[in-house]
Amino acid sequence: MGEDLLLMIPGPTVVPSRITRAMSAPILPHRGKEFSQMFLDQMERLKMVFRTKNEVYVLCGSGTAAMEASISNSVTEGDKVLCLINGKFSERFAEIAESFKANVIKLEFEWGDQVDVGVVRRTLYDNPDIKVVTMVFNETSTGVRNPVEEVGELVSDTEAILVVDTISALGGDVFETDLWNVDICVSGSQKCFALPPGLAFISVSDKAWRVIEGNDSMAYYLDLKNYRKDKAHAPYTPPVTLVYGLRESLDMLDEEGLENRWERHKELANIAREGLTELGFELLPLSEEICSNTVTAVKVPEGFDVSQFKRILRERYNIEIAGGQSHLTNKIFRVGHMGVITERDLYATLVCIELAMEEM
Amino acid sequence: MGEDLLLMIPGPTVVPSRITRAMSAPILPHRGKEFSQMFLDQMERLKMVFRTKNEVYVLCGSGTAAMEASISNSVTEGDKVLCLINGKFSERFAEIAESFKANVIKLEFEWGDQVDVGVVRRTLYDNPDIKVVTMVFNETSTGVRNPVEEVGELVSDTEAILVVDTISALGGDVFETDLWNVDICVSGSQKCFALPPGLAFISVSDKAWRVIEGNDSMAYYLDLKNYRKDKAHAPYTPPVTLVYGLRESLDMLDEEGLENRWERHKELANIAREGLTELGFELLPLSEEICSNTVTAVKVPEGFDVSQFKRILRERYNIEIAGGQSHLTNKIFRVGHMGVITERDLYATLVCIELAMEEM
Repeated sequence: MGEDLLLMIPGPTVVPSRITRAMSAPILPHRGKEFSQMFLDQMERLKMVFRTKNEVYVLCGSGTAAMEASISNSVTEGDKVLCLINGKFSERFAEIAESFKANVIKLEFEWGDQVDVGVVRRTLYDNPDIKVVTMVFNETSTGVRNPVEEVGELVSDTEAILVVDTISALGGDVFETDLWNVDICVSGSQKCFALPPGLAFISVSDKAWRVIEGNDSMAYYLDLKNYRKDKAHAPYTPPVTLVYGLRESLDMLDEEGLENRWERHKELANIAREGLTELGFELLPLSEEICSNTVTAVKVPEGFDVSQFKRILRERYNIEIAGGQSHLTNKIFRVGHMGVITERDLYATLVCIELAMEEM
Repeated sequence: MGEDLLLMIPGPTVVPSRITRAMSAPILPHRGKEFSQMFLDQMERLKMVFRTKNEVYVLCGSGTAAMEASISNSVTEGDKVLCLINGKFSERFAEIAESFKANVIKLEFEWGDQVDVGVVRRTLYDNPDIKVVTMVFNETSTGVRNPVEEVGELVSDTEAILVVDTISALGGDVFETDLWNVDICVSGSQKCFALPPGLAFISVSDKAWRVIEGNDSMAYYLDLKNYRKDKAHAPYTPPVTLVYGLRESLDMLDEEGLENRWERHKELANIAREGLTELGFELLPLSEEICSNTVTAVKVPEGFDVSQFKRILRERYNIEIAGGQSHLTNKIFRVGHMGVITERDLYATLVCIELAMEEM
């Protein structure tokens, strides 16, 4: 509000003052009982958000650190990894797997379309030696929501484990780690949790632990076995103030109720889609059914200058939206509506988008 | 002050309210110009603290993340790594190198003694194929300051690169990255910078870059080549609020002056050593000349209950000190005096230590 920038990008999002205040508390000794108990409690509470009975660990790092942990702990040189790719972040999984010298099968789908479950089925059938399947639930780069439940059902019938990045949706959109057979689920602090960046979350199923324990990992800082040994005491100094913030964020989530929060995000997404469509933009996702509930991506007409448009919104209205990434640069823009963003914020954004269009 | 815990452990340290306030600013888009310029500026300013012309990078992670980066970027399976070990943190370098399947030569010295330069010289002479030498400048676990300058001179005459962990001393004690021929220097936010944990710093010399560029690294999140490509834009979302804190911390450092700050830490260390010796404790380091200027470790007499002692200090006086680690548990205690800790804080601690001893 006021002079503060209204961040309508798909993360980092606005951090509410309640969380900022919580993070301003004095530093506790990270090896002491008080902090260890608080740290453990938050990991326990995260299970509710992940909808899992699996253990959830909090890492000190960007979301990509948890993505790497999911691969480096479960994959050794030459292991077959199936990467389902329909955007920048699902591409990242393939890059990580290649860095760790996996034998990567890339199934690529149009940016704006969903992962095709039929193709996944055939590939799994043709490659019974696939060890790990990676996908992104909510492709931040395209505003597409992928069919994790369907892929999970397929993968659960194989020896492979399913790794899913939910960084830009967990805590905002319906996600069921256990019901959907997700073996490793990764997320981060700076999206629907409305925290600053710096914390990454990861849940690990029994099936995944068996793979990890049988794997000769190239990992130290992100070696999950060390986090499991003594869960209350992170092996390396945790970011104490961000953990205070996480507690406050989970308090806010409890107060709202997870399912109400899902509903709120769904309503915001509807408003964003309707509003932007009425303003004449076409959704990037091929159909409304596959649209993300936390970020909306729309195409811009030929000759529309996305940079200038963003600049007007920023300089005149103090609102930040996001452009496109990779080959979608200057072809789309994206509006994030996650975390503590309200209808009021979204309506303000839509009105200012209309005014910025007029100004152009 | 007041009801706030006085943290006299060797990190994390007390975070001053100026830094807390700075970290409470609204989140900036991490890909926008304003944040990128600020991020770049802080990395530039860190060079002054490192005393280096080399580039310094800021990573999102615990200090151990930067320790891992120094190894995982420069070492491939089978490479010979010489680890100089005289405490828990120098031991960690060997653990990391072993995780990355290096051929590790461990030179172990007594915990409380310095690294012996003569032994290092002979080992380097006998093993001209050593690729990386690791050491810790300020062994937090023993309160010993290691002869980095002397080792640096030896290593600079070889093909090997010198990696030094300065996590618990940089910005508090005299350290000269370039003058002392340190190829990779790693540090962290939660010690002499008086920031919360969550940022790690790493500088890389030209000699180290040549090794890194010729190395087939198992690294993605911590792949330094990606940080070098576009320094203003960290490859993965940086912890925005901690970067605000870093700016404030460097402002405070500028106002005090780096050399004045070194002097202040030296004076605090003298007060800590004198005070604890007068109270009847014996220094763990074998001589005063090798003592750390940021943490003081003293032995306790037979039968002295360190846990009870720490508990009295915490519960009655709201002061936190540290015990010993590994085989030094219950044999020593440690008092940290780094960052924004003042004479007033240290005198208060010494008086309360005396009172806690009487109470026991």
